[in-house]
Amino acid sequence: MERIKPHTLSGFMELLPQKQVQFDKIMDTLKRVYSLYGFTALDTPAIEASDVLLAKGGGETEKQIYRFTKGDSDLSLRFDLTVPLAKYVAMHYGELNFPFRRFQIGKVYRGERAQRGRFREFYQADIDVIGDGKLSIYNEAEIPSIIYRAFTQLGLTRFVIRVNNRKILNGFYEIMNLSDLSGDIMRTVDKLDKIGADKVKSILTDDLNISPEDSDAILRFISIKGTNSQVLEALEEYRGKSEVFDKGLEELTAVTKYLSDYGVPESNFAVDLTIARGLDYYTGTVYETTMTDHPEIGSICSGGRYDNLAEYYTDRQLPGVGISIGLTRLFFVLDDCGLLSDNTLTAPADALIIPMTSDLSAAVSLATIFREKGVRTQLYSEDKKFKAKITYASRQNIPFAVFLGEDEIKSGTVSVKDLSDGSQVTMTGQQAAEHILNVINQRYSGAIING
Amino acid sequence: MERIKPHTLSGFMELLPQKQVQFDKIMDTLKRVYSLYGFTALDTPAIEASDVLLAKGGGETEKQIYRFTKGDSDLSLRFDLTVPLAKYVAMHYGELNFPFRRFQIGKVYRGERAQRGRFREFYQADIDVIGDGKLSIYNEAEIPSIIYRAFTQLGLTRFVIRVNNRKILNGFYEIMNLSDLSGDIMRTVDKLDKIGADKVKSILTDDLNISPEDSDAILRFISIKGTNSQVLEALEEYRGKSEVFDKGLEELTAVTKYLSDYGVPESNFAVDLTIARGLDYYTGTVYETTMTDHPEIGSICSGGRYDNLAEYYTDRQLPGVGISIGLTRLFFVLDDCGLLSDNTLTAPADALIIPMTSDLSAAVSLATIFREKGVRTQLYSEDKKFKAKITYASRQNIPFAVFLGEDEIKSGTVSVKDLSDGSQVTMTGQQAAEHILNVINQRYSGAIING
Repeated sequence: MERIKPHTLSGFMELLPQKQVQFDKIMDTLKRVYSLYGFTALDTPAIEASDVLLAKGGGETEKQIYRFTKGDSDLSLRFDLTVPLAKYVAMHYGELNFPFRRFQIGKVYRGERAQRGRFREFYQADIDVIGDGKLSIYNEAEIPSIIYRAFTQLGLTRFVIRVNNRKILNGFYEIMNLSDLSGDIMRTVDKLDKIGADKVKSILTDDLNISPEDSDAILRFISIKGTNSQVLEALEEYRGKSEVFDKGLEELTAVTKYLSDYGVPESNFAVDLTIARGLDYYTGTVYETTMTDHPEIGSICSGGRYDNLAEYYTDRQLPGVGISIGLTRLFFVLDDCGLLSDNTLTAPADALIIPMTSDLSAAVSLATIFREKGVRTQLYSEDKKFKAKITYASRQNIPFAVFLGEDEIKSGTVSVKDLSDGSQVTMTGQQAAEHILNVINQRYSGAIING
Repeated sequence: MERIKPHTLSGFMELLPQKQVQFDKIMDTLKRVYSLYGFTALDTPAIEASDVLLAKGGGETEKQIYRFTKGDSDLSLRFDLTVPLAKYVAMHYGELNFPFRRFQIGKVYRGERAQRGRFREFYQADIDVIGDGKLSIYNEAEIPSIIYRAFTQLGLTRFVIRVNNRKILNGFYEIMNLSDLSGDIMRTVDKLDKIGADKVKSILTDDLNISPEDSDAILRFISIKGTNSQVLEALEEYRGKSEVFDKGLEELTAVTKYLSDYGVPESNFAVDLTIARGLDYYTGTVYETTMTDHPEIGSICSGGRYDNLAEYYTDRQLPGVGISIGLTRLFFVLDDCGLLSDNTLTAPADALIIPMTSDLSAAVSLATIFREKGVRTQLYSEDKKFKAKITYASRQNIPFAVFLGEDEIKSGTVSVKDLSDGSQVTMTGQQAAEHILNVINQRYSGAIING
């Protein structure tokens, strides 16, 4: 038979079993945290009609889209979870309750240039709160507090959620009489970290024809630094000159206050005036999240407040606030930086029952007792040498081997071998199940991320 | 602005939040049960290279495949989870441990003709055990016992897992000297339920040129009915005439014995000689599962034993046994038949905190206490009339509203209203969290399926 070489497309993450367990644990933690905050799970199709998906049109993304026809249908794979959410909310407006709080963790597709750490199929993990006409500022604090909780539950400690407010930026440019150029200016100062202050200033003066004085004022404003209260205090100096600015400062102050009420420490949360987010979509609070020891990775979790979720589908005003984790990339980065804990139980089973008799009935009964107690159990039924069976367990990090021979069956006991140290005890099946669960709960109670 | 009418493609299931919760609970139950049996989760790309996905080539499926190009790449969306498994095992052979036990729950794509209850994007939930060269018969009993456990955990009781063995069928045709026609005969008798015995006999005699006596013998064989032990006993009459038959009978007897050891009652498990599965792929035990009260739906869970998982990719022999649930269709059917319990908690939150003060700090602290206790909590922050807030909770079936006003803040208490009966109690935040969890655990302890 002619054989095809099996391969997986480049840019498509496919994990070996133990890594997959780690990935799934991260996903499960996010789901649990999002649920604790009263978000409901959504699942939308990976394929949408192209006219729906591309209603907003244009842009860099369009080239990357997987678009094709099937029969008469012009179809596209979703490239994010926001457009499907907009479609969903516009379609089902009458059946939803607002504020509508949903999370979605799903695969999205972008035919990007293949390179290390870039994925063409990747998971996004999104949370959004959508209002009907209005939405309280409280939500703009709650969203980053959820991310703080999710990351700390995962074991990630060295990260900073950077928060700014677009109204403060827009208001400042209004004060400077530079509103017409605010988009260009923001895109320029967004590059501050990458190209430095001098280069930014020369773009402002040379390309955008802004006076040197105004350019300096912009750079001074953008360079306001310090603790969160110091930054807010510095911003007070600009108050009273622009309604938009004053509103933004009020919002940023409220967000800072509620984040503090939520117990988010300043080491994980910084007011940062350089955060603008490239998209015109955002209108209020904006977020980026960086890993303290790995700034080179860029933002691992971004989002913000927007005024119109679904303007391409409906004339209803649907303001919202949301944030998105690029989960596949984050996992790749964590693994790459050695931040995934190797003290997580990644075995497919807690116990491998090794029957020492050819009839398996007693082993089946024991497996049933174990599973009813919640022990993830495999009954090893293959005809192999004893050593091969133990190797099978230890290579997969299965913590316990459980032997069941004629003697044990007669005496109603089993022999439980702890494969981490080779120690062996004899007890009843019920006791064995409890023993195994106790040891596992103690031994693998740590977080999935070291850092 | 020109607006696009938002719509979801036909044949693509998209659920409203409460239905999505029900769907996810079914998926979570399957994951939990599969994990209890020592299966590890896999996640493979939805897109594969067309040459890999279509290595087996031809057949009905190929027309239904979503196939397209991106740049120079010829790509296809997966149409099942078996071909990706074959690819995965062949690719990662050296890094896996055999028997390799995996489950995968994921979306697959088939561009079928649109009709009610048919889906173009749908979840399959597969479990497979793959051996390296050999695989014990025990696995062929374990697989249906897992399905029994999964379905009963879900609350489904009126179903029958029908089990047969292809070797018994092949052996029988060998005894009849009709081996060359066995494929055609099996495809014909497979239609027995649909077209009746007379029609089957006329196809056998007229189309396949089988003598009327042999046709009767085939129909007699296929019509062996009774309890599992009666069927096995009737099969004993054919023993000793074909090695293949004898091997099949031995296997079917072993499978029946271990299923009984696993406590699977005969009401949920029947030896049924009419089950052949159309695919030549299967070589031993085969399964189909029917809903007792809805035979018209056909099989909701099918599979069997195969000798070569990955012959298109590798010359290693990788025998296995697996079973697949068409989850999206099953959910549609359960919903359609009114079998989804409406006593499941489908609300996005367990408690809605309704602050009665404009400052939300105290409400944030209360929400934190609730969430730390595991109460899924939303803090209602919108500026609405009191009645609208209660309506928001009750329309989403949120069980509890929790009020926090000046008086409560002063006295360190909260008022907890049970929205099912309107009763209200005052207690501390800690007590409230425990009270809410207790009531919820008692009230919503039932299964997701009624039947």
